[in-house]
Amino acid sequence: MGPHPAVAAIRLAVRRVLHDILTDNSTTELPADGPLVLVACSGGADSMALASALAFEAPKLGIRAGAVTVDHGLQPGSDLRAAEVVVRMTALGLSPVESLAVTVGREGGPEAAARDARYAALDEAAQRLGAAAVLLGHTRDDQAETVLLGLARGSGIRSLSGMAETSGVAGRYRRPFLGVDRQTARKACMVQSLPVWDDPHNADPAYTRSRLRHEGLPALEKALGKGVVEALARTAQLSRDDADALDSWAAQAETTVRDDTGLLECAKLFALPPAVRRRILRRAAIDAGAPAGSLFARHIEEIDRLITGWRGQKAINLPGRVVAQRQGGRLVIRQG
Amino acid sequence: MGPHPAVAAIRLAVRRVLHDILTDNSTTELPADGPLVLVACSGGADSMALASALAFEAPKLGIRAGAVTVDHGLQPGSDLRAAEVVVRMTALGLSPVESLAVTVGREGGPEAAARDARYAALDEAAQRLGAAAVLLGHTRDDQAETVLLGLARGSGIRSLSGMAETSGVAGRYRRPFLGVDRQTARKACMVQSLPVWDDPHNADPAYTRSRLRHEGLPALEKALGKGVVEALARTAQLSRDDADALDSWAAQAETTVRDDTGLLECAKLFALPPAVRRRILRRAAIDAGAPAGSLFARHIEEIDRLITGWRGQKAINLPGRVVAQRQGGRLVIRQG
Repeated sequence: MGPHPAVAAIRLAVRRVLHDILTDNSTTELPADGPLVLVACSGGADSMALASALAFEAPKLGIRAGAVTVDHGLQPGSDLRAAEVVVRMTALGLSPVESLAVTVGREGGPEAAARDARYAALDEAAQRLGAAAVLLGHTRDDQAETVLLGLARGSGIRSLSGMAETSGVAGRYRRPFLGVDRQTARKACMVQSLPVWDDPHNADPAYTRSRLRHEGLPALEKALGKGVVEALARTAQLSRDDADALDSWAAQAETTVRDDTGLLECAKLFALPPAVRRRILRRAAIDAGAPAGSLFARHIEEIDRLITGWRGQKAINLPGRVVAQRQGGRLVIRQG
Repeated sequence: MGPHPAVAAIRLAVRRVLHDILTDNSTTELPADGPLVLVACSGGADSMALASALAFEAPKLGIRAGAVTVDHGLQPGSDLRAAEVVVRMTALGLSPVESLAVTVGREGGPEAAARDARYAALDEAAQRLGAAAVLLGHTRDDQAETVLLGLARGSGIRSLSGMAETSGVAGRYRRPFLGVDRQTARKACMVQSLPVWDDPHNADPAYTRSRLRHEGLPALEKALGKGVVEALARTAQLSRDDADALDSWAAQAETTVRDDTGLLECAKLFALPPAVRRRILRRAAIDAGAPAGSLFARHIEEIDRLITGWRGQKAINLPGRVVAQRQGGRLVIRQG
């Protein structure tokens, strides 16, 4: 008798990614005892399932499997919990296993600050341990939530493209479960008798993502039908491909719309499709020093009107003390 | 003292569109007594507000303003209601004013069938009365709902682009209120003492859009914050521009990837960005007879694997008895 379908599903997802890691690293020199793949485990169901699948699949492919857990230090006793995760990872046969204590700052709100601290610790550990990859337990449900969070920004298709299957320096981070739903991960833990820990933050309505998970998405499913999570995850993939294609078009077109002195020529910009032109303008504003996170669609719209609706407007003030103005048919965007 | 801000807002929105209509029609011969612009009015707040603004703005621009109301015949007494809307339109000074009785079929579900019947009647009336344009009362809230409905399909950014400001044959339909929220339209009716009729369908939970309006969107706003409607409407505009740009790229690229006999060359398709390649494949399937509405992202994915993951797959069956197969490095897509 084979494994439970949920266990089969998580193992298949991990096996595919491990194959990719081996293929992608085939030209680099690998350690004699096999490459090391780490799983980032919080002790929750998603990453416990991921750790169990990694422990099962890695040895068959000559891969060493290790684990790290991040102690965010945000609740009393978080260090004990991290130590417990280390015990569980070790029990799964993973090695090395480390607990990484971090200090969470305040920048960008509690969720962003925790994320920044977490990835910094993961980066450091991956580097220090010489890991070929770090697996992250984000599921299809997480992806759907991320798309909705992006949608709420209203800043275009790049923000709809959710999390990438591969990200980080040299594609270090891999997300094998983006096509696996949360329910499957939970089920896989249950049938394998893996103890899981429910992060109280996940149910805390102070967190946007938690409200989305427990109220927003269920209401949307009730209105639109059961396929919403899948549809959102598919939207992420399609949007990512579309955004990549348009970015490449804009990068190519950008080289053709500058004059000898490097200034953007309005007439040439005017001839481009709006989607391409606005990407060039956004890029130019960022290159001039505008922080990407503070640059909204309405800013780009306003610069765009210097080209499409020219009636002698004054200089436009952008975030990061960047100023955009039209002078003699050229666009001058620079820090003021 | 000027008009109430809500009235000023709806008038400004209509004035802008009337200007566009005059500009767009400046090269065609206009009737001596001025072009005719119709408003499609259900008697609800959105289209009543639109009718009032049209009645106010049109004469100042030498435009004749008329109205039509569609009697869908779906409830007892709908004919009386339509007659009442005619009275109200006439009282606003609009002329001609017509009630159009339609028979709603069943194809595509109740909402789609009603829409099809409605637009057929509007098309006929616009043609017969020689209207330069028909104004529709869709608001920013309707646009947000349309984006969410598109999101639920998960079929990519074209379905996220909502309703266009201008659509139909020769840009006949105009939606002046896509940037105006529903609350403003209601307020404008109230302060002008215009009686409005609430369509019971709008509150009927049997309708997807109604569930979205009364449950889905409010829950999403509660989770994500008040700006969701605006963000969704902006997403629509950005997605539309992006989809247009990618369609134009695909149309241009499509001419370069066919061999002398007109077949698609797999090697050339492979070299294109996935977003562009998949649009070409979708177009080819539709040209071969696959109904656009039945062609899902997973179909296109499967055709795409003939190019990106070729391992001797068999022919792929698509909707509309269309078959796609790879033969000698070429893609053959035709009705079987």
